[in-house]
Amino acid sequence: MSLPSKVKIVEVGARDGLQNESTPVSVDVKISLIEKLADAGLPVVEAASFVSPKWVPQMAGSVDVFKGIKQKANVNYPGLVPNIRGLESALESGVKEIAVFAAASESFTQKNINCSIEESINRYTEVIEKALENDLKVRGYVSCTLGCPYEGEIASEKVAEVSKRLSDLGCYEISLGDTIGTGTPIKAKQMIETVAKHIPMPQLAAHFHDTYGQALANLFAVLQLGVSTIDSSVSGLGGCPYAKGATGNVATEDVIYMLNGMGIETGVDLDKLLEAGRFISDQLGRKPNSNVGLARYV
Amino acid sequence: MSLPSKVKIVEVGARDGLQNESTPVSVDVKISLIEKLADAGLPVVEAASFVSPKWVPQMAGSVDVFKGIKQKANVNYPGLVPNIRGLESALESGVKEIAVFAAASESFTQKNINCSIEESINRYTEVIEKALENDLKVRGYVSCTLGCPYEGEIASEKVAEVSKRLSDLGCYEISLGDTIGTGTPIKAKQMIETVAKHIPMPQLAAHFHDTYGQALANLFAVLQLGVSTIDSSVSGLGGCPYAKGATGNVATEDVIYMLNGMGIETGVDLDKLLEAGRFISDQLGRKPNSNVGLARYV
Repeated sequence: MSLPSKVKIVEVGARDGLQNESTPVSVDVKISLIEKLADAGLPVVEAASFVSPKWVPQMAGSVDVFKGIKQKANVNYPGLVPNIRGLESALESGVKEIAVFAAASESFTQKNINCSIEESINRYTEVIEKALENDLKVRGYVSCTLGCPYEGEIASEKVAEVSKRLSDLGCYEISLGDTIGTGTPIKAKQMIETVAKHIPMPQLAAHFHDTYGQALANLFAVLQLGVSTIDSSVSGLGGCPYAKGATGNVATEDVIYMLNGMGIETGVDLDKLLEAGRFISDQLGRKPNSNVGLARYV
Repeated sequence: MSLPSKVKIVEVGARDGLQNESTPVSVDVKISLIEKLADAGLPVVEAASFVSPKWVPQMAGSVDVFKGIKQKANVNYPGLVPNIRGLESALESGVKEIAVFAAASESFTQKNINCSIEESINRYTEVIEKALENDLKVRGYVSCTLGCPYEGEIASEKVAEVSKRLSDLGCYEISLGDTIGTGTPIKAKQMIETVAKHIPMPQLAAHFHDTYGQALANLFAVLQLGVSTIDSSVSGLGGCPYAKGATGNVATEDVIYMLNGMGIETGVDLDKLLEAGRFISDQLGRKPNSNVGLARYV
């Protein structure tokens, strides 16, 4: 067992999280949340998505969000970019890092972004090229790595193939998403091992959902392989569009609690993080959706 | 990593769970729950506690519960016994297995059962002796193994010492409880490793709480040591008396989901288990408190 001594947390609540909440929040609330998350010591705070507000009303005002946040020098604030038009908005906002979103499942890609995996990669080729020309860093998401809501099991080889293509296009990090949370520890390990045959481990991130309660166990499993980047969402923001009563993204608070308990450094102040989680939960009119938040406050 | 190929689940919802629910349920409902759990394939279904109903009104009617359940030949139905009077009720009920309850924390023992650890062991000496004379099996609980609500950290050596004493008195299995759910994977491993220096691994059970969301990660950690008995509570029955908004016992559904995903045999039918969880949650007028139950039903 070789656990990393440090883990980089990529906080996705303000984008991936809020994007999937039914209650839209104002630009000001988003800015406050992002600043609180950065103040809590999170090194990467995904801040917005440059998609059409026609499709994702929750992400309206992304340019204003970026212009509004007081950026800290040592924090990255990536923005999701679906296409060239999104990249243009991102560049206009002064974004320094973007993320693109692919999937290891054909059916999911069709239903989610209305094209084949091949077409999505082709579309991103131009986006990534232009982003790199503009000195942006590019992160690649691959979803459905441990199961697909339409196809069920997904071959790890397919995950590796899509990941490698994004990596070859210039993504500096590949975030491997268990989009429906059906993964369990051994499968999570096997998937990461397969991808790591093609992409160095330090370039991989685990983006696990807690829908079936498995996320921390899966994270502990892949930490043992040396994975040292974890995506998570403050207060479990986001829920799960495929199981209405259930949790989606693993809560950052629970991840930090586990890492703290194992002496793994993250630089995150759990109390400040809990406050940020409480702030946004209050704004959404619901209880915190992290176990640590519930244990501490409710 | 040497995961066991089979795991024995000790279902504690009908006792440890219901005992900590604020809504008492009738003897008939308890009987139905116990029978549903046994029908789901659980090999051990803790059925009642022979404590005074003056102290624990939720456990009133334990003798009637035992007389009412149609026992399956291949299922154990242990009953908790706090003292000689409890043992007499247990014997009157025809119980074949009892459990006694100690703790690795002095303060917790004082507050919980109003005596020192030493006094509790002395009290159990007579109970266990008499139980063994009557051909009952005896299981020993040790609580606060990964933290105490009053003392904080608990030395694993203390856990090992209390466990060894119960084992020496004749307990065939020692259930190691993370009573407040503050354990994390490495600490859970270290605690089990320490106890396993004194008691063979097949005689140890992990009884972990999910208060901070850590239970499955902790279970995955100790499964890797070869732990092959897990205590859990259908639909997360029980809550946590030390953190009102939080979860207590890890939900059996979530444990089974993880073990199924890893190909570890339990003999439990997840669908029937989910039905049992739904039944008792409906009786208590609340949503299921397992992630799998929420993902499937709500």
